[in-house]
Amino acid sequence: MHPLARFRRGHLHLTRLEAFSDAVFAIVVTLLVLELKLPPLKDHASVSELAHQLVEIAPKFLGWLISFIIVCKFWLNHHHVLNLASHADYGLAWLNSLFLMGQSFIPFPTAMMGEYPTNPLAVSIFGVVFAVNTLLFIALQRYIVRNLIKPELASAQDPHALIKAMVGPASYLVGAAAAWVSVHAALVIYLLTPLFYITPPEWHGKMQPGADAKKP
Amino acid sequence: MHPLARFRRGHLHLTRLEAFSDAVFAIVVTLLVLELKLPPLKDHASVSELAHQLVEIAPKFLGWLISFIIVCKFWLNHHHVLNLASHADYGLAWLNSLFLMGQSFIPFPTAMMGEYPTNPLAVSIFGVVFAVNTLLFIALQRYIVRNLIKPELASAQDPHALIKAMVGPASYLVGAAAAWVSVHAALVIYLLTPLFYITPPEWHGKMQPGADAKKP
Amino acid sequence: MHPLARFRRGHLHLTRLEAFSDAVFAIVVTLLVLELKLPPLKDHASVSELAHQLVEIAPKFLGWLISFIIVCKFWLNHHHVLNLASHADYGLAWLNSLFLMGQSFIPFPTAMMGEYPTNPLAVSIFGVVFAVNTLLFIALQRYIVRNLIKPELASAQDPHALIKAMVGPASYLVGAAAAWVSVHAALVIYLLTPLFYITPPEWHGKMQPGADAKKP
Amino acid sequence: MHPLARFRRGHLHLTRLEAFSDAVFAIVVTLLVLELKLPPLKDHASVSELAHQLVEIAPKFLGWLISFIIVCKFWLNHHHVLNLASHADYGLAWLNSLFLMGQSFIPFPTAMMGEYPTNPLAVSIFGVVFAVNTLLFIALQRYIVRNLIKPELASAQDPHALIKAMVGPASYLVGAAAAWVSVHAALVIYLLTPLFYITPPEWHGKMQPGADAKKP
Repeated sequence: MHPLARFRRGHLHLTRLEAFSDAVFAIVVTLLVLELKLPPLKDHASVSELAHQLVEIAPKFLGWLISFIIVCKFWLNHHHVLNLASHADYGLAWLNSLFLMGQSFIPFPTAMMGEYPTNPLAVSIFGVVFAVNTLLFIALQRYIVRNLIKPELASAQDPHALIKAMVGPASYLVGAAAAWVSVHAALVIYLLTPLFYITPPEWHGKMQPGADAKKP
Repeated sequence: MHPLARFRRGHLHLTRLEAFSDAVFAIVVTLLVLELKLPPLKDHASVSELAHQLVEIAPKFLGWLISFIIVCKFWLNHHHVLNLASHADYGLAWLNSLFLMGQSFIPFPTAMMGEYPTNPLAVSIFGVVFAVNTLLFIALQRYIVRNLIKPELASAQDPHALIKAMVGPASYLVGAAAAWVSVHAALVIYLLTPLFYITPPEWHGKMQPGADAKKP
Repeated sequence: MHPLARFRRGHLHLTRLEAFSDAVFAIVVTLLVLELKLPPLKDHASVSELAHQLVEIAPKFLGWLISFIIVCKFWLNHHHVLNLASHADYGLAWLNSLFLMGQSFIPFPTAMMGEYPTNPLAVSIFGVVFAVNTLLFIALQRYIVRNLIKPELASAQDPHALIKAMVGPASYLVGAAAAWVSVHAALVIYLLTPLFYITPPEWHGKMQPGADAKKP
Repeated sequence: MHPLARFRRGHLHLTRLEAFSDAVFAIVVTLLVLELKLPPLKDHASVSELAHQLVEIAPKFLGWLISFIIVCKFWLNHHHVLNLASHADYGLAWLNSLFLMGQSFIPFPTAMMGEYPTNPLAVSIFGVVFAVNTLLFIALQRYIVRNLIKPELASAQDPHALIKAMVGPASYLVGAAAAWVSVHAALVIYLLTPLFYITPPEWHGKMQPGADAKKP
């Protein structure tokens, strides 16, 4: 038996896979706010000191915003891609777990970049983490398209899908490289990249319509 | 093609949108408790010192209470509004994500106001954040009513709904302005505002009855 | 119109009420572990120093254990009680939110008691919080039994249910009083109380059987 | 009546048991990232200082990785085992709660081992906690197989399942013992153990096929 054959076994409920994933996505985006911490004020009632501290932590707000948007983008595309699968096997369960591991890691580089926005290494790692996350998502997507796609969608694959998908990781890596020249340029690239993927690609086949869009 | 037309595509499961939203709501209300931190006691066994410290952090309890009630109110109205939609498209998914971004931000101003209850800026920002959250919710609601409403409800729209809805943000902004005169007045306004929205508005049409009120 | 009549309106999906509640229960029990913090070791590799610190925070482990068991007990009874309801109205949604507010507060007294286990006030508040939580649960239960019970269960109400239910809050309050004499006695009472409610009361009617015990 | 008979009563929705469990799993894996904390940098913009600190906390990344993989492995096997049950009773609800208590505890030994990777006690406790977790899972599994198994699967039980299952706890305990000789050996054992259970055992009977793999 092929050593990877065991992963092709299993017949999991897509609903539990989605429930587990949705909870991880939701916790990741909500934990991000915990990093928005103010340094203690000397004069608790001082408006100017508080305003000054809020401006000081502006990079944290920006990191929070970028990460929130990107995780929501992943959520939307994840929803789209799982819809293509007829069922889940152990291979999909593990690729999904690795993808969620990448998602759950996001608060770390977000906090690091928010804390040290002038440090090229911190800003660069932020982009590398999103590139890796996008690659994990592409692996998940390829696995579904190759092994688990609903029969009625099988003929509708876009032959250029992989190349198009690689624009995302490439763009994040360009941002990560740009960080060593200008952290501001890197942030602009990080902010613009998700906009290319803000809606999932159109699938050139017949998607199942709204029959299942509402729980009965 | 209109640049926004891509958002009108997509046919998402409302159930996953709800699951993601419910998890974010649940995490937000539960994370609020993490800000209720006691300063360390000098004498661990001293009843009077502990009682004193509990009284000292009373503003944190009040902030926790107000934010908890308001997020629950948003949850209830969110449930009501998603029930009006026949399905979800990408536009709804993103408006919902922006709304959840606002919700997930709530622990930050809550902590800030709990920490610096005498600081007009901190108390004022608290109200502005809730005004923005209510505006995001109104945008979500308008989008559903305009684009995604169930056909059988389409004729039942209240022409004054938008004006009535604006009472919420206006009231929070009045509180935010009042904070510069009296933080106590602001807190009273913040506490009273959600009471106006404690139940969703009656919909002047035929709602689908309990057929789907219980999972089969 | 009666001022409370608006709460009798609404026809919510019990599934979303359950999803929101389940997420809050899950987050509460999981957040409890964040309070299990070791003080920093002077010698990182010292076995005896680490062993000593683990023994020092033993009260935190005990608090974690008690709170975990009690929240799981609430979860089980909550599941049981919502099963009695034919649907949810706004009154149930708000009583449920107040109940969840009580649940989400639990990490605070748990941390306080774990930090100051010799302080009678800290140990006493722990019991009062659980008494209040049980009262909120009883209110939820009474509301369902009076207003929302499934017609086929209506004749099966136990006339002594309320008196039996009051044993829980009374027992927690006895523990809270005992804390002023002996914190150890209080802890024993807190640990024993949930055992009386470890399974929901038998309902003297015909419950719907396993037809809906598994999602189709 | 047998004192344990009350646990055989009850007819819970497996879906709510799953929803509660999925949320706990998801929160546990996502909270792990909160322990990945950098010590403050002296020079915020220094690349070499940040790189040095990231290398310093490498054991925390390793602990995070091991714990994440193991919890995902538990999630997958939990999904598999609950699929064998025809319904849930109170006994299953409580065994599941105890199992989730073990899961929710995982961030504590993970943080301790990440903080003190050279301390044999810290590394050893990490393995003991996973051994206990596996034993709790085996108890859950045995309870389902003995009491709640779907009739069509009852004849398909592997008589050696218990012995095979015990390899897991034994392996973690070997790792826990090895920690007293070499913490590196222990870590290798912890990393390899879940690989034996990376897919649930094949069930020698007819599983229900994909009919329920997708919510209708």
